[in-house]
Amino acid sequence: MSSAASAVVGMIGGGQLSRMTHQAAIALGIDLHVLADDPEAPAAAAGATPHLGGHEDLDAVLAFARQCDVVTLDHELTPAPILRALVDQGHVVRPHPDAARFAQDKGVARVAFAEAGLPVPAFILVDRGQTAEVTEFAAEHGWPVVLKAPTGGYDGRGVEVIDDAAALERSELAANSGRWLVEAAVPIEIELAVLVARRPSGETRLYPVVETVQTDGICTELITPARIPADVADQAASLARRIAEMTGATGILAVEMFLTHDGELIVNEIATRPHNSGHITIESAATSQFENHLRAVLDWPLGSTESIAPASATVNVLGPLGSVDLAETVPRALEVEDAHLHLYRKVSRPGRKIGHVTARAPTIEDARAAAHECVERLVGR
Amino acid sequence: MSSAASAVVGMIGGGQLSRMTHQAAIALGIDLHVLADDPEAPAAAAGATPHLGGHEDLDAVLAFARQCDVVTLDHELTPAPILRALVDQGHVVRPHPDAARFAQDKGVARVAFAEAGLPVPAFILVDRGQTAEVTEFAAEHGWPVVLKAPTGGYDGRGVEVIDDAAALERSELAANSGRWLVEAAVPIEIELAVLVARRPSGETRLYPVVETVQTDGICTELITPARIPADVADQAASLARRIAEMTGATGILAVEMFLTHDGELIVNEIATRPHNSGHITIESAATSQFENHLRAVLDWPLGSTESIAPASATVNVLGPLGSVDLAETVPRALEVEDAHLHLYRKVSRPGRKIGHVTARAPTIEDARAAAHECVERLVGR
Repeated sequence: MSSAASAVVGMIGGGQLSRMTHQAAIALGIDLHVLADDPEAPAAAAGATPHLGGHEDLDAVLAFARQCDVVTLDHELTPAPILRALVDQGHVVRPHPDAARFAQDKGVARVAFAEAGLPVPAFILVDRGQTAEVTEFAAEHGWPVVLKAPTGGYDGRGVEVIDDAAALERSELAANSGRWLVEAAVPIEIELAVLVARRPSGETRLYPVVETVQTDGICTELITPARIPADVADQAASLARRIAEMTGATGILAVEMFLTHDGELIVNEIATRPHNSGHITIESAATSQFENHLRAVLDWPLGSTESIAPASATVNVLGPLGSVDLAETVPRALEVEDAHLHLYRKVSRPGRKIGHVTARAPTIEDARAAAHECVERLVGR
Repeated sequence: MSSAASAVVGMIGGGQLSRMTHQAAIALGIDLHVLADDPEAPAAAAGATPHLGGHEDLDAVLAFARQCDVVTLDHELTPAPILRALVDQGHVVRPHPDAARFAQDKGVARVAFAEAGLPVPAFILVDRGQTAEVTEFAAEHGWPVVLKAPTGGYDGRGVEVIDDAAALERSELAANSGRWLVEAAVPIEIELAVLVARRPSGETRLYPVVETVQTDGICTELITPARIPADVADQAASLARRIAEMTGATGILAVEMFLTHDGELIVNEIATRPHNSGHITIESAATSQFENHLRAVLDWPLGSTESIAPASATVNVLGPLGSVDLAETVPRALEVEDAHLHLYRKVSRPGRKIGHVTARAPTIEDARAAAHECVERLVGR
């Protein structure tokens, strides 16, 4: 017979974030329960305790919460009223809905960050169809502009570069989004992410800045330490810390930033959950983002976020895999020394992240080369 | 829907070794199935796919094997005829029963290692009741002698120090063991273990030598690198490599050794599975023993066994915990910086390993201090 769990954590959503959180939960003696529509969701396939149900189904979410010491999130899609209902009924929800809304609605975040004096792109937030406002904005800031759906987007979906007024008229995104977040295009030199672990008590720890490489709006590669001057890294950390305090986020908070050609840091968006940019921490850091997310939402002491290698790089594995048979390619991929494979057990589709590979090495170039080589072998190229 | 597993590995036994193997299996996209009597066995509690059945039940083991690409072991207790039946029916069993028998029967190992000229303690292997032979052996090698049951022992059970002939008459172990393995007492300076990962193809990788600390026959602490001269470490590695070749073990092989007061290495016993002395590798090495066990039994390329920290120490958590409530003590234990907690979800009993803590540090003393401090907080001292 097994002994009692040290705690029961419920995660709404059963994707790869829950899957990797479950791996961390095993070591800590925590039972991870996941609420997911699909009994074969990645986290359930790894052995997290599945509860069948949708995140938009209040009764399902409430029934789920009753089994858990604390409820946390693997995505931004749970409607805010449902999160608030959990809190109203006395359940512990971390992040609190007041913090989660900054990640659920990019408009809310943009306005709040701008009002707090944080560096954000020039933007307007207007109702659908306010083409005149957009044209006026572009007259001041120049075309193209970046159109974002304030809610529901991820992996490049919900973001479109708009070249002119005619393109706005033709845009499917514009037609489908109730509100438009329109931003000036930022001359991006490099994209960065800062991961913060924060407890309800306020204890906060930051991971070293991660450089993120985006391809077609999808994060394809991570590098730590980021190749930026120390003072820029300090500024990035300071911005992330301010956002953690301002939002009151608990658990992992990811702050995505742009470094412009002029060396200026601009806050892009945030996530209030374990984040793709933190996958690298499984190997690069003393404590992974997944373990620190669990510790943080349970208000347990946080683990060290320090790097344990001079350089680490992560390369995402994107679908489609076509006719690739992983049973054949995994052994070939594992020939690459010091490359650490993570497969999510997701059916591959174009642009879908189905795994990642992290390599630690003495130099960034060595780490990148190993991670790329491993992924190329895995996908049969 | 989840994608197909990269492989299905079946492990006979559902204890903490299977539990930690499951954590490694998740990353590699492997489905780990476990055969266990208890639906709440530690590995099942972590989400490995449980099959209810006993390791002494031929039909249950055969039905289990049919679901798996390869069958491997979390303990030595599966009867050799059952392992041979699996092989006879075309199942892939790693380690092969010819290798597993060296771990299942200490008498077999002692005789074979002695015949191969490996350094072993002076010993005799006799049937129960051959007291005269034992007395004669003691006359040559001196009292006390060490009495071992050749099969079935672990964690100090099955081993007894016998002071004289009268003590042998009184010994419960002697009365219950069909054969007696009687050894000269070795003047132990330090105990060591060398972990080997070996593929069917013969590819072999050794982990750096681990120093093991035993208390009342139970391993209570691990240290790596072992505090021994480099030439002794080389000899230990060389002995382990010879035993790996000689036994043909596949998967993880653990070779336990004594270093005597005279600086001589003596081979004690072996295990042909992930081993308690390898738990330290989860944090200390580039690839854990659990991941390398999976890779090896699947005949996949092995991962680097190099240390990633200057020093690491593991302290086992032994029962009983009495009235200790882990939900209270875990957060206190996690205050210890850089201590990595592993709980097995086992009901605590006196002398039973219910978890372990590993710390990495610049020095062995720092690592030991952190691991001990964390365990003391955990068990409420």
